[in-house]
Amino acid sequence: MARSVSVIGDRWTLLILRDCFLRVRRFEDFQERLGITRPILASRLKKLVDAFVLVKVPYQQRPVRYEYRLTQKGLDLYPIVMSIVHWGDVYMAGKKGRPLLHTHDLCSKHFDPVLVCSECGEPLVAKQVHVHRGPGAKSARHLPLDSDLPIARHVAKEKAAS
Amino acid sequence: MARSVSVIGDRWTLLILRDCFLRVRRFEDFQERLGITRPILASRLKKLVDAFVLVKVPYQQRPVRYEYRLTQKGLDLYPIVMSIVHWGDVYMAGKKGRPLLHTHDLCSKHFDPVLVCSECGEPLVAKQVHVHRGPGAKSARHLPLDSDLPIARHVAKEKAAS
Repeated sequence: MARSVSVIGDRWTLLILRDCFLRVRRFEDFQERLGITRPILASRLKKLVDAFVLVKVPYQQRPVRYEYRLTQKGLDLYPIVMSIVHWGDVYMAGKKGRPLLHTHDLCSKHFDPVLVCSECGEPLVAKQVHVHRGPGAKSARHLPLDSDLPIARHVAKEKAAS
Repeated sequence: MARSVSVIGDRWTLLILRDCFLRVRRFEDFQERLGITRPILASRLKKLVDAFVLVKVPYQQRPVRYEYRLTQKGLDLYPIVMSIVHWGDVYMAGKKGRPLLHTHDLCSKHFDPVLVCSECGEPLVAKQVHVHRGPGAKSARHLPLDSDLPIARHVAKEKAAS
């Protein structure tokens, strides 16, 4: 997760990505909507292009001007952005209610996003998920802390049944 | 989304929250796992307590020591954290594979998280979602940019059919 967070774990970057999913593509539009300084916006867009989350595409010649479009890697950030928006709708919306409503083309209804298990389709709840060391585990830092044991960090034991 | 991002849109905060879901609760454990300085860790934990995402609970008397537990508001960040972890698994994992595997208690299988529509259950794709002004909309900054029109920002028209 540390590597993902190094790409998206920044206030402005998350707001830029939200706007990308609202079909904002041009430097001036990001700047006007977000009220962000040009150098900060330029640095965040460059970082997202370098990470292959956005790609620069020319939309005008003489002078050449570029717009920023989400790549597939960027489009796959949608669950993250939608989950943040939904959490804000539940816990941060003012008395008047949500600033935005979402409708789903497939069913034509207003909806909420729900994170479910790919295997059984049931909504995911933290307490019903167990974490195990994967093939790419490099250190105990990745592993869950077994809170039954004393304070010191230790490598959690895999459950035999898994 | 700006208000949500002001709470969670920070590299360290996201890593602290990841560890909370791995059952890390004590200051020293966060510090050791994350390699974070004490002042930064203390400031991020205080911010999460102030935002009612974590709650301080005493686990020892004389001297009193506290641990940090997720509130319901904090537990509801799970889809965000899981979505970030999954995106990292897809795009950031090294050659050896994922550092962690997740099993779901309800079906006992390794799974991926999938964000679906609450109404029809189909996976959500950005292109199949339309955004409309909600009751709490305060400014055009929240609304999608209609990229068919010239550069200037404007209030997007609601589609009649919705």
